[in-house]
Amino acid sequence: MTRPQPRDAFKSPRFAQPATFMRLPHATDLTGVDVALVGVPFDSGTSYRPGTRLGPREIRTQSSLIRPFNHFQQIGPFDHLTVIDAGDVDASPISLELAHQAIESRIGEVVAAGAVPLSVGGDHSISLPALRAVARAHGPLGLIQFDSHIDTWDEDFGSKLFHGSPFYYAVTEKAVDPRRFVQVGIRGPMYGADDFAFQREHGISVLDIDEVGRLGVDGVVAEIRSVVGRGPVYVTFDIDVVDPAFAPGTGTPEVGGLTSREALQLVRGLAGLSIVGGDIVEVSPPFDGPGQITSVLAANLLFEMICVVARGRQP
Amino acid sequence: MTRPQPRDAFKSPRFAQPATFMRLPHATDLTGVDVALVGVPFDSGTSYRPGTRLGPREIRTQSSLIRPFNHFQQIGPFDHLTVIDAGDVDASPISLELAHQAIESRIGEVVAAGAVPLSVGGDHSISLPALRAVARAHGPLGLIQFDSHIDTWDEDFGSKLFHGSPFYYAVTEKAVDPRRFVQVGIRGPMYGADDFAFQREHGISVLDIDEVGRLGVDGVVAEIRSVVGRGPVYVTFDIDVVDPAFAPGTGTPEVGGLTSREALQLVRGLAGLSIVGGDIVEVSPPFDGPGQITSVLAANLLFEMICVVARGRQP
Amino acid sequence: MTRPQPRDAFKSPRFAQPATFMRLPHATDLTGVDVALVGVPFDSGTSYRPGTRLGPREIRTQSSLIRPFNHFQQIGPFDHLTVIDAGDVDASPISLELAHQAIESRIGEVVAAGAVPLSVGGDHSISLPALRAVARAHGPLGLIQFDSHIDTWDEDFGSKLFHGSPFYYAVTEKAVDPRRFVQVGIRGPMYGADDFAFQREHGISVLDIDEVGRLGVDGVVAEIRSVVGRGPVYVTFDIDVVDPAFAPGTGTPEVGGLTSREALQLVRGLAGLSIVGGDIVEVSPPFDGPGQITSVLAANLLFEMICVVARGRQP
Amino acid sequence: MTRPQPRDAFKSPRFAQPATFMRLPHATDLTGVDVALVGVPFDSGTSYRPGTRLGPREIRTQSSLIRPFNHFQQIGPFDHLTVIDAGDVDASPISLELAHQAIESRIGEVVAAGAVPLSVGGDHSISLPALRAVARAHGPLGLIQFDSHIDTWDEDFGSKLFHGSPFYYAVTEKAVDPRRFVQVGIRGPMYGADDFAFQREHGISVLDIDEVGRLGVDGVVAEIRSVVGRGPVYVTFDIDVVDPAFAPGTGTPEVGGLTSREALQLVRGLAGLSIVGGDIVEVSPPFDGPGQITSVLAANLLFEMICVVARGRQP
Amino acid sequence: MTRPQPRDAFKSPRFAQPATFMRLPHATDLTGVDVALVGVPFDSGTSYRPGTRLGPREIRTQSSLIRPFNHFQQIGPFDHLTVIDAGDVDASPISLELAHQAIESRIGEVVAAGAVPLSVGGDHSISLPALRAVARAHGPLGLIQFDSHIDTWDEDFGSKLFHGSPFYYAVTEKAVDPRRFVQVGIRGPMYGADDFAFQREHGISVLDIDEVGRLGVDGVVAEIRSVVGRGPVYVTFDIDVVDPAFAPGTGTPEVGGLTSREALQLVRGLAGLSIVGGDIVEVSPPFDGPGQITSVLAANLLFEMICVVARGRQP
Amino acid sequence: MTRPQPRDAFKSPRFAQPATFMRLPHATDLTGVDVALVGVPFDSGTSYRPGTRLGPREIRTQSSLIRPFNHFQQIGPFDHLTVIDAGDVDASPISLELAHQAIESRIGEVVAAGAVPLSVGGDHSISLPALRAVARAHGPLGLIQFDSHIDTWDEDFGSKLFHGSPFYYAVTEKAVDPRRFVQVGIRGPMYGADDFAFQREHGISVLDIDEVGRLGVDGVVAEIRSVVGRGPVYVTFDIDVVDPAFAPGTGTPEVGGLTSREALQLVRGLAGLSIVGGDIVEVSPPFDGPGQITSVLAANLLFEMICVVARGRQP
Repeated sequence: MTRPQPRDAFKSPRFAQPATFMRLPHATDLTGVDVALVGVPFDSGTSYRPGTRLGPREIRTQSSLIRPFNHFQQIGPFDHLTVIDAGDVDASPISLELAHQAIESRIGEVVAAGAVPLSVGGDHSISLPALRAVARAHGPLGLIQFDSHIDTWDEDFGSKLFHGSPFYYAVTEKAVDPRRFVQVGIRGPMYGADDFAFQREHGISVLDIDEVGRLGVDGVVAEIRSVVGRGPVYVTFDIDVVDPAFAPGTGTPEVGGLTSREALQLVRGLAGLSIVGGDIVEVSPPFDGPGQITSVLAANLLFEMICVVARGRQP
Repeated sequence: MTRPQPRDAFKSPRFAQPATFMRLPHATDLTGVDVALVGVPFDSGTSYRPGTRLGPREIRTQSSLIRPFNHFQQIGPFDHLTVIDAGDVDASPISLELAHQAIESRIGEVVAAGAVPLSVGGDHSISLPALRAVARAHGPLGLIQFDSHIDTWDEDFGSKLFHGSPFYYAVTEKAVDPRRFVQVGIRGPMYGADDFAFQREHGISVLDIDEVGRLGVDGVVAEIRSVVGRGPVYVTFDIDVVDPAFAPGTGTPEVGGLTSREALQLVRGLAGLSIVGGDIVEVSPPFDGPGQITSVLAANLLFEMICVVARGRQP
Repeated sequence: MTRPQPRDAFKSPRFAQPATFMRLPHATDLTGVDVALVGVPFDSGTSYRPGTRLGPREIRTQSSLIRPFNHFQQIGPFDHLTVIDAGDVDASPISLELAHQAIESRIGEVVAAGAVPLSVGGDHSISLPALRAVARAHGPLGLIQFDSHIDTWDEDFGSKLFHGSPFYYAVTEKAVDPRRFVQVGIRGPMYGADDFAFQREHGISVLDIDEVGRLGVDGVVAEIRSVVGRGPVYVTFDIDVVDPAFAPGTGTPEVGGLTSREALQLVRGLAGLSIVGGDIVEVSPPFDGPGQITSVLAANLLFEMICVVARGRQP
Repeated sequence: MTRPQPRDAFKSPRFAQPATFMRLPHATDLTGVDVALVGVPFDSGTSYRPGTRLGPREIRTQSSLIRPFNHFQQIGPFDHLTVIDAGDVDASPISLELAHQAIESRIGEVVAAGAVPLSVGGDHSISLPALRAVARAHGPLGLIQFDSHIDTWDEDFGSKLFHGSPFYYAVTEKAVDPRRFVQVGIRGPMYGADDFAFQREHGISVLDIDEVGRLGVDGVVAEIRSVVGRGPVYVTFDIDVVDPAFAPGTGTPEVGGLTSREALQLVRGLAGLSIVGGDIVEVSPPFDGPGQITSVLAANLLFEMICVVARGRQP
Repeated sequence: MTRPQPRDAFKSPRFAQPATFMRLPHATDLTGVDVALVGVPFDSGTSYRPGTRLGPREIRTQSSLIRPFNHFQQIGPFDHLTVIDAGDVDASPISLELAHQAIESRIGEVVAAGAVPLSVGGDHSISLPALRAVARAHGPLGLIQFDSHIDTWDEDFGSKLFHGSPFYYAVTEKAVDPRRFVQVGIRGPMYGADDFAFQREHGISVLDIDEVGRLGVDGVVAEIRSVVGRGPVYVTFDIDVVDPAFAPGTGTPEVGGLTSREALQLVRGLAGLSIVGGDIVEVSPPFDGPGQITSVLAANLLFEMICVVARGRQP
Repeated sequence: MTRPQPRDAFKSPRFAQPATFMRLPHATDLTGVDVALVGVPFDSGTSYRPGTRLGPREIRTQSSLIRPFNHFQQIGPFDHLTVIDAGDVDASPISLELAHQAIESRIGEVVAAGAVPLSVGGDHSISLPALRAVARAHGPLGLIQFDSHIDTWDEDFGSKLFHGSPFYYAVTEKAVDPRRFVQVGIRGPMYGADDFAFQREHGISVLDIDEVGRLGVDGVVAEIRSVVGRGPVYVTFDIDVVDPAFAPGTGTPEVGGLTSREALQLVRGLAGLSIVGGDIVEVSPPFDGPGQITSVLAANLLFEMICVVARGRQP
């Protein structure tokens, strides 16, 4: 097998060498790549505490712990897929418009090369240009959103786009098929009884945290699979769906969330779906502690996503 | 509706303006107020790690995330209640006696104005003067204490009052009716087999953490409601009832505690009770991490309490 | 004397009550105000580590240590000036353009009311709208810039405005008179030998850190006074002019900077100048330590500025 | 009763006096001692983030919260056992070989004195010399390993011993009887499908985290007891078996782990076994937050272990 | 030489064993002791940020770096003096009165045993009972106070004693001879022009930070020696005299202070004086960073003080 | 000019892309390279607080601030030299012997390729294999050691090599010519009056911190140049020569050290010397604060070193 593997941790210490995602090779050439891990260090769509622009670098560092085999999914994904660290999108921190153009363009290149883009944010606004790029190739997408927030507001401070609006636009622009769109883990104080009007109007499914509790992991997985069906699916994982105890390093924490065990099992439950893109967003290292456990969790979720993609490709 | 609302976060950023509880107006005039949020920055009753004097300011800051509608209780409390940030009690950090006088006096003013006082500590000793002030108006109170410690010791280092003694005095002074007093979440290493002698003697109910585990949230709620009945009730929430993973910023952490989800659900379970006062205590920001998740949790618990009060007022 | 004073710290603990600048009253009415302390929590012009949007709140908190008398300037400024915490500008975090409009508008109100605006940032881009507003009333201004960076670049990532460009535009728009403009403390690795071309072209004075070392505080003060002369002057203090040892909480730290003692003495040296506005910028609390010494320093520098304004008003 | 007790916290503040384990006397004489708490500040077997050499001191500090009575096990262990802080092993940080000799020698002294050694690490490599010393007295031991990692690799970077190999050598040297050896909580990305080959070959039992979830605490306890039976047992508790939310201060964190409540209950479930030695390892204070909750948890687990030993001694 | 020495760091790692001051033996018996290092973990006299109760333990930990020889004073103090860690005063955190009694009593024992007490605070209020105890044996004392604050206020919140008042009472009770009392390093915003009235009235010498700057270290040392003369002298070192860059871990930081080099040289300048007691106070570990550099500095200042005492004893 | 340059920060944000030293290309091929920046993430020679194994990665991250032109040395070094990030040495964390072999081998490759190796540690023990490799090519070297410790002890805990011994062996193995060896900044408590015996015996020059203070930067530079003369010189910069205020992130801090301004000026003073190798060591990120100012300083010192090398190459 000549696919790239994480450097051998028994020969090169985990803490050595410039940090790349999972200690995979850093490359910009996408030829033959199955999964491109793309950093998107952009947080200028953030309405509260910033810092997710520093997410990709910290997640690279903490992903040094990832080993090549997934015991719980029983797969060594790097034996089945060519996975690389495709570097970061050079997104302007000053202009959301220019940044989103750069993101859409780079994700478009990944998709055009036949690779599945898995982006590492960055704030949640980055999902919009990613969805645009993926939908251009695959048509309206199914969308699985793990999140404590609905992110379907349409405007903030007179600006159309921010990290609370990506899915409003993804739906209205038809990058996402709302009947194949499910939101999981929603909670926290809200703005009003109308917060879910958009969801109701478009037929978007919502599993708030109490329903997650009632259904259990298996029930939620079944519901997700029922909603998104067999078509192409994009998975967006906002780390704030996890409780702040497990993911303190985020900008808009909401208490009462998922445990890390639940989060891992939910992602594992997606195996077999036709995943054409995904992202993990809203990790803000300055608000994490010295152990940087939020980035450790994000790195593991990313690894589980890769394994899910790998299982989707197995005969 | 002209009741005060949290400032509009789509127009004024959450991180802007001097921080008040839930971005509500800061006012000292209590006329027409239904719920007064009162900071009590006092920690000189603390026997171990200090710092809760800094709690009210940090909880104000982190409460900026609170939005006006509670999806899980289906209520917008600020539409039903006039809620203000009534500022802090100017409690001497040098003299527990002077401080307790100031607290009792200020809470007395709140009660006299017809408002429900919800205090934000501060160490747990502050519950005693608050209970005295509330009981003066309402008579002996039911008491729901979420806590990992019993706090019914009667003396420390030759001093009668400290943060481990408030409920000894509240009971012996008859501010609290022990048969309507329930302690929930008790755990941690203890001093001896006699620790619960006071409880047994006075007929105080105790649900230690193992019983909480056995009963589950619904069972605990039923037990609480059974103990306190229909009379006036005071709710005291010591943040250390929650596990240190969810609430590291506290002075006397005890492992093996509630999750944040359990904590939220327990408070929600109090809807319908006749709550005449309450507090959240023992948040110590210097021992929290950079995400200040303990203050975020306290702010949310305070919001849930307000909603519970609001539902108690609904026809 | 009935001017507002910091709350009496022997009666109300420094850590009590919602935090305002120097424990002064928070007010939005500017009538009769001599100095308005204005928070500008905006950091979306930041090219590297963000977080200065959280500066105004933290500086408010840490300014609780300020007492009313300046022994080294021998003045009690609040006896001579009416100083208030005028709150924050509600600046959009998403759009630099909208934010700058809001800042210019609010500073314009302060100036129109006859008050001196002292802004607390926020990133350095906020100086541009402030200078525009002040210059509209006073004409082209003298400018004293304490900074490690020149901030006269004209573009970043295709955007014209960011925190490295305010003085390029202030000069080219003639809000600042370049012959009365002096930069103090410049250092750090630079882009090239041409970095000072703009300065040479416009006759801007530059005292890099080595010249500051050679001249000493008294020599630098003399040079500053010689450059800006008697006309109206704006003072902008980027906290990164101070060494990271004294001011670690900033986004673009440059080693080898001023000590805090030098910084204080330099500001004191401005007494007698005709200061019509000023700001302190680039304090980023997430990168500070638990002692938040950067905000403590910023609060003291702000106090020294107020005293300098007060002495400028004395007969 | 004249056995040593934790200093009386109502007379000597918990934060006072040089910190010892549980505020017990520090002594090096082992005469009459039942349980010796031995610090082993050694981390030079660590392959990733270091810092566990600082574990014993921090756990001493945080163990100040331990009180003398265990309500959940209904025992006051210090009334039944003579327990001391036996100080630390002076283990060279430069040479693993010299350090392991020193550890084996000191633990051998404890065993020879008739005391049960409970070691506080340090990295997991310290279990090997401890097991050697204990097995020399008791013969091949049963072993209960709470851990997220298997730690049965045989080599790293050409070195035979490191913190991933202790149990490979403990088994091959016959200090541990593999049929009485159970690993609990295993998880995280692994190296390959062969990771458990050693376990299968030697008949070692493995309960990975999913099986722990399926069995529940009671089921796991039953399985552990079934594996280790009635003979002498050593308990090794790697703090990373607990989820990073509850134990962020560790070098090789693996997400999706035990809660602190589960951890406490699992240790309590060992009551009645013939425990002849044990350790708690891999607490790395530099990666913990300011609340040092990982050391608080370790101190409590150590207390539960002592109580389990005490119950094993009761008639 | 059989005097106690710091444990040999080439045999016992610095980070090993329960932490004592300078790795000296912990003993409560004072027979034959020349210098007793006494921890005073008390901070209930604190008016702003608390935490100095945790000072003695952290300074013990960080003092592990102290080696036995002082190159700059050319003395190995432990060869000339018997120095021990005399443990902590068990001072009540709840009652300042009881705590001060305990402190005075314990320091009295040290003095009665013929030893020089060097206390490690704790807040600055602890100097008062220490001065009382020392003055009882030696009569009115000379006093050298390194501090940014004058600490001669007489009341706070209606309480007579707090950490701002010790020297008001020490002078008025005649424990200190005001003509032999010098304050060094005073700075920061003050309350008013009258702040120094007490000093003027009693003939206390004050060297504010600007005079320290003008005189230089040698000039300050000369002035100190001139004021205190040949009689018995007590040295009190408030760590906040040092700039927050060098000592961030303190409760009431004042910018523009001494460097650590100046602080060390000032203490060294006291050699030859007749020092009969001293203290280092106001180190608050929760406000320090992870390197705990404030405690490192305090440990070194304590070592310099011991050397100064040793040189005062040399023939 | 086609030499590699730091990525253009106006096009690619400083925080974007996998972090390399100064945002230079990461390459392992040394052909045509003038200066190779080599990470040496090894800290198993550390006798006190560990963590410098994490130094290279953090210094890479913080070096993102470096820009291409040095105003104070008036040179753009990347126009004159081909400088690359040569990656890290894969040094075993378990065996000092294997690690030192790997370091010597890799530095030997750099030297053989005609490049100047500038290493980024790691603990100070790494200087020994680096000196061996460089001396093999150049003969006995001049050595400039900036350090607070002498590091000429010959043994620790029975091990010959540790981070306190490199220069003992470098001298006795004749990799360094002791008459061309100067130590600058020595301070801190020492072991005894004999600490400098080795220096005296071999004619090594020592400038302790007091002599540095007396001579001033210019005097120290003159003395250094006088000692090392015109032959090949190696520069080793232990970050702990700088005061902990400026460099808190280190394992063995010594108070009273250099300021960052002094440190920069001292390195700049080496221009014109024949520098054939160098290193910056002992940066320990876990003990730094959130601003990571120690790594920022190390990155700047590394840049100054590169500029000094570049000036040494200019005609």
